Amino acid sequence: MPNKKNKLPKNAKRVFKGEIFEVWQWPQKMFDGSIETFEMLKRPDTAGVIAVVDDKILILNQRQPDSASSFLSLAGGRREKNETALNGAKRELLEETGYVARDWQLFNKISPSGKIVWTSYTYIARDCIYWQPPCLDAGEKITAKLISFEEFLALADESDFYEPELVNYMLRARADKKIYKKFHKILFKK
Amino acid sequence: MPNKKNKLPKNAKRVFKGEIFEVWQWPQKMFDGSIETFEMLKRPDTAGVIAVVDDKILILNQRQPDSASSFLSLAGGRREKNETALNGAKRELLEETGYVARDWQLFNKISPSGKIVWTSYTYIARDCIYWQPPCLDAGEKITAKLISFEEFLALADESDFYEPELVNYMLRARADKKIYKKFHKILFKK
Repeated sequence: MPNKKNKLPKNAKRVFKGEIFEVWQWPQKMFDGSIETFEMLKRPDTAGVIAVVDDKILILNQRQPDSASSFLSLAGGRREKNETALNGAKRELLEETGYVARDWQLFNKISPSGKIVWTSYTYIARDCIYWQPPCLDAGEKITAKLISFEEFLALADESDFYEPELVNYMLRARADKKIYKKFHKILFKK
Repeated sequence: MPNKKNKLPKNAKRVFKGEIFEVWQWPQKMFDGSIETFEMLKRPDTAGVIAVVDDKILILNQRQPDSASSFLSLAGGRREKNETALNGAKRELLEETGYVARDWQLFNKISPSGKIVWTSYTYIARDCIYWQPPCLDAGEKITAKLISFEEFLALADESDFYEPELVNYMLRARADKKIYKKFHKILFKK
């Protein structure tokens, strides 16, 4: 269960290393004293960016090479080795959209799965400026668009916008004026 | 991205089989024609049960052998081989709580991760009846409790109730009277 045990026990051993995922196992003492093999995965952390450009929010429409359909998402991606989560977020925003920002803030940090050692960060990047053309890799087809705060909150109803934790907050903001104002203020400073 | 490509391509090969997870890989043609190794996981499907007992809902407090803290959840668990998702849900409800029901309905079915071949089912079990003492395995410490519909909707605010898709619906029900009534009716038939 997220945010609870996003850690491997000390006696865990890596039994497989793939392209993204590692598989780890350990002997686990059960409540009756018996031993079973427990298993968890490890994967690189990821970061998503709520990028604010003037009074708009930057949203991506992406397609990946193994799927015919596109989906909406925040800018973001996997953290590389020897990179902080924040630097990974900055790199992905620049590569995917060409935008940069000076004013960054961590908005949320969760472990989406109790079975995977993996932290998912969500950052806010305020006052973003278009810096250079995006630099997509061979596995990305991305177009960015700017939407209003209202349009952004409406995305909570779109099944192809898959950010479950953020959607929960967006629904709260839609239902509760206080949270709406708080969310607006953290994004736009007003 | 969930509900989009929860399928392995035909040329995928299993490169590792663990206790829960399998790792599969395939050569993926990128948009520029180059080839990269893509990777996905496969894991047993899971089912959760919103179990209705008279005008109450059955919620579990669980602890697992590799964690000191407990968490709240629906009854449920992994589907076994040669078992339908529904039969898995019935078995888990009986094992974990001792309750049975005749009146079952599929409430929701999602693929929580675009990188894992895995379907998560949520069932409603109406008019549950206590049948026999729970039959927990060595890796489970579970106590069940009955809560009202209002208390159930309030669980959306509890960080140790980790059912993100369901929480999403609970928040909608709290914000919108129509959804509230629809949810109440599907659970309690009134």
